[in-house]
Amino acid sequence: MRRNWSTLHELLLPMAAGQPGGPPDQPRYQRPGRALEDQLRGMVRAGRLHPGARLPSTRDLAGQLGLARGTVSTAYAQLIAEGFLDARRGAGTFVAAVTPDAKDARHAPEAGLPRRFDLTPGLPSLAEFPRTAWTRAARAALSTLADDQLGYPPPAGLLSVRAELAAYLGRVRAVSATTDQVVVTHGTIDSLATLASELRGDGHRRIAVEDPANPHVLRTLTLHGLTPVPVPVDRHGIQVDQLPDCRLALVTAAHQYPLGVALSPARRRSIIDWARRRDGLVIEDDYDSEYRYDRPALTPLQALAPDRVVYLGTSSKTLAPAIRLGWLVAPGPLADAIAERKRLTDRGASALLQATFGELLRTGGYDRHLRRTRPIYRRRRDAFLAAVAKELPGWKPAGIAAGMHVVLNLPQKLDDTTIAEQLAAQGIHLDPLSHHVQKLPRPPGLVCGYAGLTEDRLRAAVADIARCVRNQAPLH
Amino acid sequence: MRRNWSTLHELLLPMAAGQPGGPPDQPRYQRPGRALEDQLRGMVRAGRLHPGARLPSTRDLAGQLGLARGTVSTAYAQLIAEGFLDARRGAGTFVAAVTPDAKDARHAPEAGLPRRFDLTPGLPSLAEFPRTAWTRAARAALSTLADDQLGYPPPAGLLSVRAELAAYLGRVRAVSATTDQVVVTHGTIDSLATLASELRGDGHRRIAVEDPANPHVLRTLTLHGLTPVPVPVDRHGIQVDQLPDCRLALVTAAHQYPLGVALSPARRRSIIDWARRRDGLVIEDDYDSEYRYDRPALTPLQALAPDRVVYLGTSSKTLAPAIRLGWLVAPGPLADAIAERKRLTDRGASALLQATFGELLRTGGYDRHLRRTRPIYRRRRDAFLAAVAKELPGWKPAGIAAGMHVVLNLPQKLDDTTIAEQLAAQGIHLDPLSHHVQKLPRPPGLVCGYAGLTEDRLRAAVADIARCVRNQAPLH
Repeated sequence: MRRNWSTLHELLLPMAAGQPGGPPDQPRYQRPGRALEDQLRGMVRAGRLHPGARLPSTRDLAGQLGLARGTVSTAYAQLIAEGFLDARRGAGTFVAAVTPDAKDARHAPEAGLPRRFDLTPGLPSLAEFPRTAWTRAARAALSTLADDQLGYPPPAGLLSVRAELAAYLGRVRAVSATTDQVVVTHGTIDSLATLASELRGDGHRRIAVEDPANPHVLRTLTLHGLTPVPVPVDRHGIQVDQLPDCRLALVTAAHQYPLGVALSPARRRSIIDWARRRDGLVIEDDYDSEYRYDRPALTPLQALAPDRVVYLGTSSKTLAPAIRLGWLVAPGPLADAIAERKRLTDRGASALLQATFGELLRTGGYDRHLRRTRPIYRRRRDAFLAAVAKELPGWKPAGIAAGMHVVLNLPQKLDDTTIAEQLAAQGIHLDPLSHHVQKLPRPPGLVCGYAGLTEDRLRAAVADIARCVRNQAPLH
Repeated sequence: MRRNWSTLHELLLPMAAGQPGGPPDQPRYQRPGRALEDQLRGMVRAGRLHPGARLPSTRDLAGQLGLARGTVSTAYAQLIAEGFLDARRGAGTFVAAVTPDAKDARHAPEAGLPRRFDLTPGLPSLAEFPRTAWTRAARAALSTLADDQLGYPPPAGLLSVRAELAAYLGRVRAVSATTDQVVVTHGTIDSLATLASELRGDGHRRIAVEDPANPHVLRTLTLHGLTPVPVPVDRHGIQVDQLPDCRLALVTAAHQYPLGVALSPARRRSIIDWARRRDGLVIEDDYDSEYRYDRPALTPLQALAPDRVVYLGTSSKTLAPAIRLGWLVAPGPLADAIAERKRLTDRGASALLQATFGELLRTGGYDRHLRRTRPIYRRRRDAFLAAVAKELPGWKPAGIAAGMHVVLNLPQKLDDTTIAEQLAAQGIHLDPLSHHVQKLPRPPGLVCGYAGLTEDRLRAAVADIARCVRNQAPLH
């Protein structure tokens, strides 16, 4: 059921008229249009405006509500930026098919949506979280912290944990890092937000990003002052010869997100050359490199050019996102600047969490967890691919050699957003590929995380997905 | 020993000439002047430029180094903003008496400075941290989290913890909060940084702050887009009739930091009126209200005007700063905006930490800890005040009725920075009052935190402080 815009007016009008039913006298600290924006966002969140519903034109709504047209445009633009609305060129403004809240809800089980099969990409198997080892490490870590280490932590992280991380990353990833170059963060989004703010302060305005890419990452960069400029990805990774006129690039070189390709050796050299020539920096998001199945390890870009690359890692893909710990390795002066910024932003990550993670690193518990989960994820990947080969023969899953997700490319005539919505209604959660794509045309596909489901359940999920796809009417 | 500026040139010149001894070919992503800035900051940090040393004029240094004068001015300005340098009107630019690093070192024991008596204000007794109760709560919390709660936490915090906090704050502080209005943060600096960024986005540029105030807080506000405008504090608190032409104010109403006075009932009413009249907001930092000794509880401003006040609290003053958990209570639409900003900034606070803290709240462990430490801090305060009365008769310690610190006002002719430095050289750490003051004249004083030392040690520390003060030559 889609509401038409007369319903929208009906819902919004009390606000304009100041009648009961409009927002109760909320604080009026807002910028112009903020009240309208809050009201619209609230209606989308509450389900009073349905996904896909078309909004009235800015002119019509402004006229009806007695607002300036610019006020309405500003509110629409803000909600488009936040992902609640979608602008379709020539067709108008619509409620987004998958709103940020719906996406969050999949990561936020407190929202209580029923989910039979959660194939949301980017999550490890949460059932495999090493609860016992974590609890033991937490107790040991707290007992080794001196009283005065319970004060404010050094903003770059505990020295001992930064040293453990530098050694670990050198050993398993050939990252070239001294302790001074490591900064502990709240995870990759925090690393990116802090870097973006700092680089913006250094005069940067634009950053080249892969297309497709993680939309949450792009929104984070935008909020913190850098405009992402999409650069297409082919089977050799980001097309370095199409990098725009800027001095920053963000890449997922080892395992492109979401397509899963690896940046080719030639492109690796040329993106480093690009950075050197322009006096620039490459940010390398090494988000899931711990999991590799059918190919040798790829040296990170950072190892090729430690002076030109900022390396990002996280515990969210190996342990659990709930921990909120990540790290970055940056050239010394930038690492210092980031630490200083953290001192004036959040005073760094919890010493208790850091020491617990450091204890897992030090005692080999982290390595053991990776050794234990790697074959589990590999078996799950194999089961998922076998089920796809059986249920959807002819489909070519992409990005299968590493990581925890696979892309199922759909025939061009199918609409991945519709399929994802229909699947969600059946309790099957995954991401449409088109939501990751900036430049048209948007190839349809399904981004499926397989790490969290057992083999039996993966087979059942693929059977349901196949049934749903077979029933699709092609796009007109 | 103070180095003169010929030494500074000697140290800096290799950089300008590109000779060995200058920075090794560091990445050149910096803005103009950044290399000079890094070099100077490094020299202050390494102790190669001593506190109090006078820097050459921008004209002289630019001439010697072959740089544009504006480049040198920019570097000086940046380092003044960061607290490494001090500008004294008409006298030139000096290395700051207490640099940010020195301040941090006191909170960052990894730096390894010897400290006999740590009277740094703003810290609870770290020896009283309830290690056993925390470990037990952490284990219980992890066992109650469902697997899918180990995914990304809701950016505003776990629903259960926000509900516990709303109930707790309502019960002990009469804060008027629904669960929706509570956002869990990484502590007060994170709360302030996030609020500042959000309010800046709403068009705010300036915020009224108390003078004196916590300088770290002022630097955080500045970095995140709000210019602090100092407003003098008298014995009734901030002088509301001197609030500037802006729509934001930050106050420590229950226990002014650092002076310790309480905002009078008349001023409370008038600051709320001010906010209503201007369509503004008051941010209330209720940093240590858990500790009160000789006076009844003061209702927070938030309870008087929940639609006009953002309330901030933290676990740093009750449990330990190492935990990194705080909270804010804001009018609904602002709380939503803050949560959305956190989603795109750091994805919220660790679910493991939140659940552990929630478990302490739920089981009464937090209350028990407060009940246990309150009389300890009270006895320590009494011992500290008795020692001051004996060793420094005639001094009038201020702000003694609550909290964990006291201000010792010095005779006008003494220089509190010099005294603090001399004490630090003897391993006694406290903050000079003048570092908290924006507008001249800066009354000298010593801000002493007494929570962390036993009564015997407090008496010994006061004896040493008295000896040091008695030996002071008055300022010329």
